[in-house]
Amino acid sequence: MKKNSSKPAAQFAYEGLDRVIHERARLSVLTSLMTHPNGLRFVELKQLCALTDGNLARHLQVLDEDKMVHITKEDDRGRAQTTVRITASGRKRYMEYLTILEQVVRDAASVVQGNKEGTLPRKLAPLNAS
Amino acid sequence: MKKNSSKPAAQFAYEGLDRVIHERARLSVLTSLMTHPNGLRFVELKQLCALTDGNLARHLQVLDEDKMVHITKEDDRGRAQTTVRITASGRKRYMEYLTILEQVVRDAASVVQGNKEGTLPRKLAPLNAS
Repeated sequence: MKKNSSKPAAQFAYEGLDRVIHERARLSVLTSLMTHPNGLRFVELKQLCALTDGNLARHLQVLDEDKMVHITKEDDRGRAQTTVRITASGRKRYMEYLTILEQVVRDAASVVQGNKEGTLPRKLAPLNAS
Repeated sequence: MKKNSSKPAAQFAYEGLDRVIHERARLSVLTSLMTHPNGLRFVELKQLCALTDGNLARHLQVLDEDKMVHITKEDDRGRAQTTVRITASGRKRYMEYLTILEQVVRDAASVVQGNKEGTLPRKLAPLNAS
């Protein structure tokens, strides 16, 4: 608020970490769908994410309500087949989220590497000027 | 089930995404503390993470109960001064978490690169070089 420099004060707030995506099961579902742009069947998704039927259904509902996934039910020789695809807006939001996630990894990695060499990166100067 | 290669079935489950750390405010707090190994005062932490007093206090309590942070209260010329540091076990857990987070970024980046050039690094530096 008061202190003005080139860095924003809330350097580690990560406000772009979209809560809909950040939840672990949904992050798992969305990453699966990102890596399978042609869509995944319910059973495949369940397996890739190690989720139960109920859990996956619940999270897909959240993502569907948020228009991040598109769910189709088709009849496959008398059996209902559910296929899930990520939508264009879902993809866009996921990529924005990813940019922030990447920043977290970079922020932390810069220190982890700095410690190994016994120095801290310059940008991590103390906050209190006094 | 059917489609299997050398990859485990639950490829995108990310079970190592420690729920205590993954919560956005706590991820923010812990990353701040990782980058300030000498500790941060409550007010500094609050500012870096853009949290309210109540929110920060609540999340610090969770982290303290989990022995991830060490909180000291000192008297500074008549005013109580709270300082927070990450513990050795907190640091260890954070680094394990980071390894998984890095995997998420890599999994997604492998796909994104096909669509959008050069926004994500091909590979982030390894964090777990013990």
